Amino acid sequence: MSTQIRIALDAMGGDHGPSVVIPGAAKALERRPEMEFLLVGDEARIAPLLAQHPALKARSTILHTNVSVSMDEKPSQALRRTRRASSMWMALDAVKTGRADVAISAGNTGALMAMATICLRTMAGIDRPALACMWPTARGRSIVLDVGATIGADAQHYVDLAMMGSAMARIVLGVARPTVGLLNVGVEEIKGIEEVKAAGRMLREANHPALQYQGFVEGDDIGKGTVDVVVTEGFTGNIALKTAEGTAKQLGEVLRGAMSAGLMSKIGYLFARGAFRTLRDKMDPRNVNGAVFLGLDGVVIKSHGGTDALGFSNAIGIGFDTVRHQLLGQIRESLAQSDDGRIAVTAGMDARA
Amino acid sequence: MSTQIRIALDAMGGDHGPSVVIPGAAKALERRPEMEFLLVGDEARIAPLLAQHPALKARSTILHTNVSVSMDEKPSQALRRTRRASSMWMALDAVKTGRADVAISAGNTGALMAMATICLRTMAGIDRPALACMWPTARGRSIVLDVGATIGADAQHYVDLAMMGSAMARIVLGVARPTVGLLNVGVEEIKGIEEVKAAGRMLREANHPALQYQGFVEGDDIGKGTVDVVVTEGFTGNIALKTAEGTAKQLGEVLRGAMSAGLMSKIGYLFARGAFRTLRDKMDPRNVNGAVFLGLDGVVIKSHGGTDALGFSNAIGIGFDTVRHQLLGQIRESLAQSDDGRIAVTAGMDARA
Repeated sequence: MSTQIRIALDAMGGDHGPSVVIPGAAKALERRPEMEFLLVGDEARIAPLLAQHPALKARSTILHTNVSVSMDEKPSQALRRTRRASSMWMALDAVKTGRADVAISAGNTGALMAMATICLRTMAGIDRPALACMWPTARGRSIVLDVGATIGADAQHYVDLAMMGSAMARIVLGVARPTVGLLNVGVEEIKGIEEVKAAGRMLREANHPALQYQGFVEGDDIGKGTVDVVVTEGFTGNIALKTAEGTAKQLGEVLRGAMSAGLMSKIGYLFARGAFRTLRDKMDPRNVNGAVFLGLDGVVIKSHGGTDALGFSNAIGIGFDTVRHQLLGQIRESLAQSDDGRIAVTAGMDARA
Repeated sequence: MSTQIRIALDAMGGDHGPSVVIPGAAKALERRPEMEFLLVGDEARIAPLLAQHPALKARSTILHTNVSVSMDEKPSQALRRTRRASSMWMALDAVKTGRADVAISAGNTGALMAMATICLRTMAGIDRPALACMWPTARGRSIVLDVGATIGADAQHYVDLAMMGSAMARIVLGVARPTVGLLNVGVEEIKGIEEVKAAGRMLREANHPALQYQGFVEGDDIGKGTVDVVVTEGFTGNIALKTAEGTAKQLGEVLRGAMSAGLMSKIGYLFARGAFRTLRDKMDPRNVNGAVFLGLDGVVIKSHGGTDALGFSNAIGIGFDTVRHQLLGQIRESLAQSDDGRIAVTAGMDARA
């Protein structure tokens, strides 16, 4: 890693492509000047936008390609059609070949996941990658993973998720020994699926120095911020995340509707504008934009496809922090602290039997 | 069924027992006078409360027992310790023996589920029960199931859930041919787990007259009200439900905090009190209290354990509607409309192979 953090951006990714990616990079650079950019995509579309941001232009190189992955393309098709050629692949390849420290894309999640896994491969000791997001809570923020990279998990994969999520929490939340909970349908030991229960036993017995295992947590514990790291597999995690996003959006609309119905409400709204601004900021999904692919031999950040420049700049910020604090090294170190990179081998074999 | 609907209440269930159950029943009776009650539990605690509600008393019989299931007891232990003797079991048994049309409990969910399955058994053609809840949406209300009765599902079980949920939607939502979606991690056909995909093929091919299958839906579609019936298995459904409840609670607290910070906000709150009351009503979980156990040979309603009399009265209302509109008969009829009670047997066998 150079003293500058080198960021490869899939400039064509997301619903808006370069018109969000370029101003997003400019915003990110204002806050963290120790960055340089590799902008991967259609030069004819990137260059005019870059001309509007001289500070960014001075720190950017354009890597041209006409090929990009569309948002609704099947991952398998995207791979066949655009491997080696698309802006998404080339951004990942820049990480693989050492030209960049991190790749960031707002593109097609499935395609990014498939390409990142093939291009960068999983790190030693990890079978399958995970997607970790930051979740705003009553106490601040928590890390929730996996929110959609891998469907299903055996006990060992849950333990791997706990280790990787804790490493991320140390960096992003600044907690030395993060608290970890396994998402389940009840707090009593008897409940839930076998793999989750086995993972709970393994984490409890291991008493690993990198994390404090707190037991099972339920869906409502996520928003409470009961633990720093909430561990689940990708199917349930993705549904929990989107359900929460949907609920927040729905309540926002109900609130807007209520505040604009009738004169008294409108007057009340005028007086309380400051309060509503605070509320909007706290609920703003852009502030937590940027999910991290964990378990790969390289840092890859997924931005929400529909975000704007501010949201995209936050995804870049996550990428910056992840590289600066050497997330991959921390994960490798956590894994190495257990016998041959695995927690509680006896319990693990039991759980896998 | 008599012209009166006979309701057996587990008077000892929930965090508050008779002090919520009895006034809850009184409230329910005010709205729907065609009810009579079997109040199961400790007569010494029930009778004094009942004396305060003469109209209810006139329509109630007390069935005394000193035994009750505690809220944190393991289902297996509750069964061993209190089978045949507890207020929960005896309320269920009243349905089994035809003394009541519906049993309602705010008690321990796992114990209620275990006892109901053993006492009433599943209906012909259904292997495992499900718990269906009403979910407030931007468009009104939807039915979501399973929210925690059965962990995991094969393709046929998803199809059964779709049939049972549609029967409930016809009654509770008053929709002749409800729209149904399978909860998944993406709308593209390629995504998600095998069982969900197989169930999707079965539902599409069957084109059943009792429901309109709309394909996959994602977590944020629940709150949007994209479909009348959202189908998922109990692990994911329980986590989605609790995550949404947690998010709503968290946002409510943020809103309260914002509105009480600073003089301007407080003045604004005073003007907009009406709007906040509307908002509170729309967000009030008591209005959708009362989940229905589906797939049993008898009607059982689960009330939230922490609800108050108003919330409990709504659970009674759900029980009343369920019996009056003959939910069980409707489910049986839906199942009978398919070959031997199963949708698309060929596709089903394929999915089970």
